[in-house]
Amino acid sequence: MMLDGSAVVVRHALSTDLPAMVALLANDRLGALREMPTPAGMGSYLAAFESIDKDPAHQLLVCEHAGEVVAMAQLSFIPGLSRGGSWRAQIEAVRTRADYRGRGLGREFIWWAIGQARTRGCSLVQLTTDKSRTEAHRFYAQFGFTASHEGLKLLLD
Amino acid sequence: MMLDGSAVVVRHALSTDLPAMVALLANDRLGALREMPTPAGMGSYLAAFESIDKDPAHQLLVCEHAGEVVAMAQLSFIPGLSRGGSWRAQIEAVRTRADYRGRGLGREFIWWAIGQARTRGCSLVQLTTDKSRTEAHRFYAQFGFTASHEGLKLLLD
Repeated sequence: MMLDGSAVVVRHALSTDLPAMVALLANDRLGALREMPTPAGMGSYLAAFESIDKDPAHQLLVCEHAGEVVAMAQLSFIPGLSRGGSWRAQIEAVRTRADYRGRGLGREFIWWAIGQARTRGCSLVQLTTDKSRTEAHRFYAQFGFTASHEGLKLLLD
Repeated sequence: MMLDGSAVVVRHALSTDLPAMVALLANDRLGALREMPTPAGMGSYLAAFESIDKDPAHQLLVCEHAGEVVAMAQLSFIPGLSRGGSWRAQIEAVRTRADYRGRGLGREFIWWAIGQARTRGCSLVQLTTDKSRTEAHRFYAQFGFTASHEGLKLLLD
């Protein structure tokens, strides 16, 4: 897609995108409480990046526009016995820079993720979204996602 | 734990447990609609078993009692950038044979899964449960899980 006359590109993230990705995670109402966008914190993000990057079961994606990373998402492929022994695709950590929200980048990502899930023969795509993100629920409904499940979380110390 | 005088053992699943596991998946109000517990269907379950079994990011577990597989669960470990670059543990496909429900096997599994998640340094444990499984919500609340998220699913053709 084009935005303000230049192309938006969805591509795999590189380690050099890490500062921009961590900034996206931290610059979020919920993320502000739990991210460490400091030089001291970067070591653990880099280790996580490497774990994701080396495993073909995971894809870390960014949207680049005018030379800047303006959105991100993670896609994971999980094998399972249920539903006839089928794979599922799981979307995590979808974030768009504040000044790019509502301009179609998220849609670009989700269509891309659904396409990848089909290519890999997944039987479903799943994600959870905090119940306080009411705008996200409307956003995902447009792709056919149904809020059929409770998303339960247990934080460990 | 002991049940009727003999031990309940949580262990990793073997390929020879597959027929019992597929029967557990199929013998379920929702699973009855989407599983294929027939000889012709076993090939895809075996392929799925092998994908899970060969990847240390996944653990397929069974509860054995008196020589029979009476419950199952899958545990997956997923790396992520969010929450300071932390891993999360995800529980899928928890099923208990009808005659063993309400006898503490599920509790055994979930404590086991939470222990594994701590050992691997995960920051959270997550799962989704169909909104129609109201008894499951009460079950998970006892471990401290909160229904903070919507669980969105998109079935692919």
